[in-house]
Amino acid sequence: MPVSTLILSSSLALQLVSGAAPAAPAQSSAPAKSAAPAKKAYAPPLAVAEKLVGPALTEGHSYARLAELTDGIGPRLSGSEGAAAAVQWALKSFKADGVKAWTEPVKVPRWVRGEERAEILPSELTRGHPLFILALGGSPPTAPEGLTAEVVEVTSLEALATLGDSVKGKIVFFNHTMSSPADYGRFAGLRGRGPALAAKAGAVGSLVRSLATASLRTPHTGSTRFDDEGPRIPAASVTTEEADQLHRLLAKGPVRVKMVLGCSELPDADSHNVVAEVRGREKPQEIVLISAHLDSWDVGTGAHDDGAGVVMVMEAARLIAKLPQAPRRTVRVVLYMNEENGLRGGRAYAEAHAAELSKHVAAMEMDSGGGRPVAVSLRSGPGGKELLEPWLSPLVALGAAQFSTREAGGADISPLLPARVPFFGVEVDASRYFDVHHTHADTLDKVDPQDLARSTAATAWVTYAMAESPDTLARPEAPTGSPGGGAPVATPPKASSGR
Amino acid sequence: MPVSTLILSSSLALQLVSGAAPAAPAQSSAPAKSAAPAKKAYAPPLAVAEKLVGPALTEGHSYARLAELTDGIGPRLSGSEGAAAAVQWALKSFKADGVKAWTEPVKVPRWVRGEERAEILPSELTRGHPLFILALGGSPPTAPEGLTAEVVEVTSLEALATLGDSVKGKIVFFNHTMSSPADYGRFAGLRGRGPALAAKAGAVGSLVRSLATASLRTPHTGSTRFDDEGPRIPAASVTTEEADQLHRLLAKGPVRVKMVLGCSELPDADSHNVVAEVRGREKPQEIVLISAHLDSWDVGTGAHDDGAGVVMVMEAARLIAKLPQAPRRTVRVVLYMNEENGLRGGRAYAEAHAAELSKHVAAMEMDSGGGRPVAVSLRSGPGGKELLEPWLSPLVALGAAQFSTREAGGADISPLLPARVPFFGVEVDASRYFDVHHTHADTLDKVDPQDLARSTAATAWVTYAMAESPDTLARPEAPTGSPGGGAPVATPPKASSGR
Repeated sequence: MPVSTLILSSSLALQLVSGAAPAAPAQSSAPAKSAAPAKKAYAPPLAVAEKLVGPALTEGHSYARLAELTDGIGPRLSGSEGAAAAVQWALKSFKADGVKAWTEPVKVPRWVRGEERAEILPSELTRGHPLFILALGGSPPTAPEGLTAEVVEVTSLEALATLGDSVKGKIVFFNHTMSSPADYGRFAGLRGRGPALAAKAGAVGSLVRSLATASLRTPHTGSTRFDDEGPRIPAASVTTEEADQLHRLLAKGPVRVKMVLGCSELPDADSHNVVAEVRGREKPQEIVLISAHLDSWDVGTGAHDDGAGVVMVMEAARLIAKLPQAPRRTVRVVLYMNEENGLRGGRAYAEAHAAELSKHVAAMEMDSGGGRPVAVSLRSGPGGKELLEPWLSPLVALGAAQFSTREAGGADISPLLPARVPFFGVEVDASRYFDVHHTHADTLDKVDPQDLARSTAATAWVTYAMAESPDTLARPEAPTGSPGGGAPVATPPKASSGR
Repeated sequence: MPVSTLILSSSLALQLVSGAAPAAPAQSSAPAKSAAPAKKAYAPPLAVAEKLVGPALTEGHSYARLAELTDGIGPRLSGSEGAAAAVQWALKSFKADGVKAWTEPVKVPRWVRGEERAEILPSELTRGHPLFILALGGSPPTAPEGLTAEVVEVTSLEALATLGDSVKGKIVFFNHTMSSPADYGRFAGLRGRGPALAAKAGAVGSLVRSLATASLRTPHTGSTRFDDEGPRIPAASVTTEEADQLHRLLAKGPVRVKMVLGCSELPDADSHNVVAEVRGREKPQEIVLISAHLDSWDVGTGAHDDGAGVVMVMEAARLIAKLPQAPRRTVRVVLYMNEENGLRGGRAYAEAHAAELSKHVAAMEMDSGGGRPVAVSLRSGPGGKELLEPWLSPLVALGAAQFSTREAGGADISPLLPARVPFFGVEVDASRYFDVHHTHADTLDKVDPQDLARSTAATAWVTYAMAESPDTLARPEAPTGSPGGGAPVATPPKASSGR
């Protein structure tokens, strides 16, 4: 869709702005930190809301962009040709949108999936079955002929610890009971750390039940992390169907599995974050950071994870750049590289911009898929809700005019925590997110154009609120226990139980 | 589960029978065709109902059997080792159940899946995408290096006919809009006959959108039929995701696909129907035939299609055989071989038993999955409902005490149509059947044990009704346009829209 569709003539645009009843321009030069005026009931510039929400809902621009990214480029694992193509696509798209953009260097891991297959071997219990697997990102390969071993089932890292020598030489199979998005955080550690701990206990391989809320024999990949000095064993996810089958067979007797993984870890590769911004009209040095991650897993086309987030924040910037008057502060878009298997982009940004993090007045990352908006989230010092409350009214019809009970956050912005950057976010309905998360099935058809448009509209408006509000969010305390900016490899995506 | 769980002592069993208020035994020797007594309000032997419905609902025997068949044996395409193992399993199981069983020879086609892969080739529109395919049963292979051609999309056989020379040298992609089980019949012809007609029009390959009501990048296989003298081209199903993607890309420009199929057609193989029966006490020469098909596709484990039907009819026979008194007529179970890609078992049975088809007083095939029962179906001459009506009351709590608006039928029993055998059936909820039908995902976990138990109970009781009722169903007219017993290769499974 051409970006010119909704370019208004400047005279018409001015007319619309000046015609708005509680017009913003009269207030827009008020000092941001002046205590007295801010205590009055602040009336946000609602005329701007229609310029953001209107086109987001009617133009279909974010969905068209998502089709370009997923159909045109496809998967984009860090270091791959797809990831490099996505960087170029983002630069070109920002340029077409009239938003200044550039790249910033990130050195990324380069893990490459290879041949992968596994099977339950024939025994007295069964004639044997193929297993549908996906190697976990970070897994080493098996020997070319594969590995064959008996399977031991465990359902927690604690249970693994009690098994002692009995897992030596075995394939440890991590089973669990994930049934809703809220369970992701409970069980993600089995994938993230289970194989490393199984290796330390002497296991020779590991299978992890997919972190899934639906399955049609659908394996879910994801990262697993081994310690630099510790042993590493081949690790793959199995489908929920096969986890159930392994469980049934193991209840009757021993089960042996053969697995062959051909994945490899190549030398780190040069890659990039893509950064773009709309300069603020009054306090350009104050930055409202909105972000998503440009990389995806190498399966599917990363439509929900995180193509949806990418097009939401790009569209927010495009629409804000088209406003007749820029917001008070600078809106900066960061499309991070390497959220999925390293978080190098998030860390690189925090390092490269360390000197200006005190001027980052708010940051958000959209990374829970392209569902409809359900709430606004915050992580700030006192008074955050009071500051944002007057800005909620344009979100009523979008279904998001309430505050979430969850804190705002995001894996790539977690390195900003030590600098006490306030976080905000638009929480989306993620009730079906884990049906497709990290699978071959994360494709464009799973994203509802209407839901995406609504979340894009909410993202644009809340971003504008952060950039235009006379006051800024109070900075939160730095989290304890996270010295030096260390961030989790994979923060569980927020998951609304709605719908 | 041991089969002895509910064996009652004969004295207790007699007690239960004689304690039933409208006791059957008093009537059980009434002549079946004596018009006057049958016109009275017939009171079926409800005490028998508790002996059939009770154990079917409480013992979990049918589900345990389904686990044996799917976990222990797995897929069982005609001519495969799995199919042969399933025949032996069925014989052994009938023996354990105390039901006399034997095999009857069937010569079956032996189609074997090989390597299969396909991709959308890179172009100006896309960096390229893998396609998740399943060769259609009956497809010839490609050359070892595969075939590459431009794709032409059509949405009906009629539309194909209008394209003339423009499909020469192309891959014809059959797209459609299946969204509910009721659509299966509308679009199954694209899979069954599309490739043959595309071949006649000069196409070099064919892709068919999966006949699916859900997809997580899940291809659905199935049979396609080429004419004996006509051209044959490689044919595969693609997932709904990829069908949507092909459609989007084709709207923008030419798309080229490469496909590699290594499937092969081996010489016909020796196989078997498994037949078992419980002899009738009064008219053993009159046969109530209950059936399902033992073969499955080579993907998944055929849990719904048709493992569920197999265990339902086996369990019906087991429970009827345990009754203190056999029903009036013989209950014969047939587990057909080769429903999926040839119907050879159904035809072989009709031929081998041609002389006694006039004594087949009713026949049914359970082949719509393991969903809960929703109705009783019939295909008979006049008076069928009136005959069966008094028998419905034990089905009330099972949710099936009504007559379906659909005619009873089944692919394997369709060769009995010319002999005017009345059909009956238990219609099951098939609203989710086409989520997994003919896919890798047709596995045990998709069958709800409670639903399966309820449909098993209903099957047992309705079978008993047919075998015990004083009167038999009037024979229907032979269908017109189906001379000589010709039957469709694949009758669309019944699909209830319920749930």
